[in-house]
Amino acid sequence: MSANVAESALVVIDVQMAIDDPVWGPRNNPDAEECIATLLAFWRARSWPVIHVRHDSVNEDSPYRPDQPGNDFKALVAPHEGEQVVAKTTNSAFIGTRLEDILRELGGRAVFVGVLTNNSLEATVRMAGNLGIETYVVSDACWSVDKTDGRGRTWLAEDVHALSLANMHGEYAQVVSLGEIVN
Amino acid sequence: MSANVAESALVVIDVQMAIDDPVWGPRNNPDAEECIATLLAFWRARSWPVIHVRHDSVNEDSPYRPDQPGNDFKALVAPHEGEQVVAKTTNSAFIGTRLEDILRELGGRAVFVGVLTNNSLEATVRMAGNLGIETYVVSDACWSVDKTDGRGRTWLAEDVHALSLANMHGEYAQVVSLGEIVN
Repeated sequence: MSANVAESALVVIDVQMAIDDPVWGPRNNPDAEECIATLLAFWRARSWPVIHVRHDSVNEDSPYRPDQPGNDFKALVAPHEGEQVVAKTTNSAFIGTRLEDILRELGGRAVFVGVLTNNSLEATVRMAGNLGIETYVVSDACWSVDKTDGRGRTWLAEDVHALSLANMHGEYAQVVSLGEIVN
Repeated sequence: MSANVAESALVVIDVQMAIDDPVWGPRNNPDAEECIATLLAFWRARSWPVIHVRHDSVNEDSPYRPDQPGNDFKALVAPHEGEQVVAKTTNSAFIGTRLEDILRELGGRAVFVGVLTNNSLEATVRMAGNLGIETYVVSDACWSVDKTDGRGRTWLAEDVHALSLANMHGEYAQVVSLGEIVN
């Protein structure tokens, strides 16, 4: 199965320096930024729309605060001149932003990548699907970190990531691989 | 730690006959409906607001369709005369409904219970938290079903449930136990 993503918007969520802060813990998919860069190059070569979502945290302890160096986009995936940047203050990129209108104006189809799979990415993807946006998630182009549940069990990042994708797939989005898009 | 839920709205999500359909697979928390009934009695005794969310599926194969017997609320948790019912067609109870306005009019604080923990409940709770609603989830009063991820690994319902609660807790909501509320 291939993903029919031609002309859709590529939405990159929260891939800022702050995500490298050790406070988040061990991650999976160490090549995800390279995958996102590959997707960005693929989109730019075709002049398809690219949207960068930037998290401007209002939490005073967060490295994502606008006055912190962590607020900057990671260099490998930084916006090019003319690409839209959507600033948000909550997890979902649809709350308090124009993202819904922007995606509808662009045709109502979007491919989501970024961080964390089970946090801002999933919150945004669930809303996208429920809003009737035709929604894709690229499994190689996002990642999670280890998570401890209420019973004290620590889940490895790769498992948190896999179960988050399973929650999204078929219900809110179609989860696809990088190869299904660029090949 | 106790939950300060006095006067808040109790929101019961999708606890309809359809959830007993074997299509969903094995579940955890077999006493969840009893817990929800306990919470309903607690709320009603104090005349705090109760909101019942009913899923009116538009998927032609779903037992939740309005023309199916599964659309009926489970008897143990069915609405009483005068309680609000909010009908929805997507996972999140905020999409295409007046729920946000209703909760703001009621003071902006809500306790969420129902099904499935990692599906409509989580989609609704994530939006509630991101919309600035003071949001609680009662861990005993919701449940999940087994879930197979994209690698073919099947996660038990109790694990799917626990990781979903962990994703919500502290980020979108405060997860509390039945005892923290009624004791």
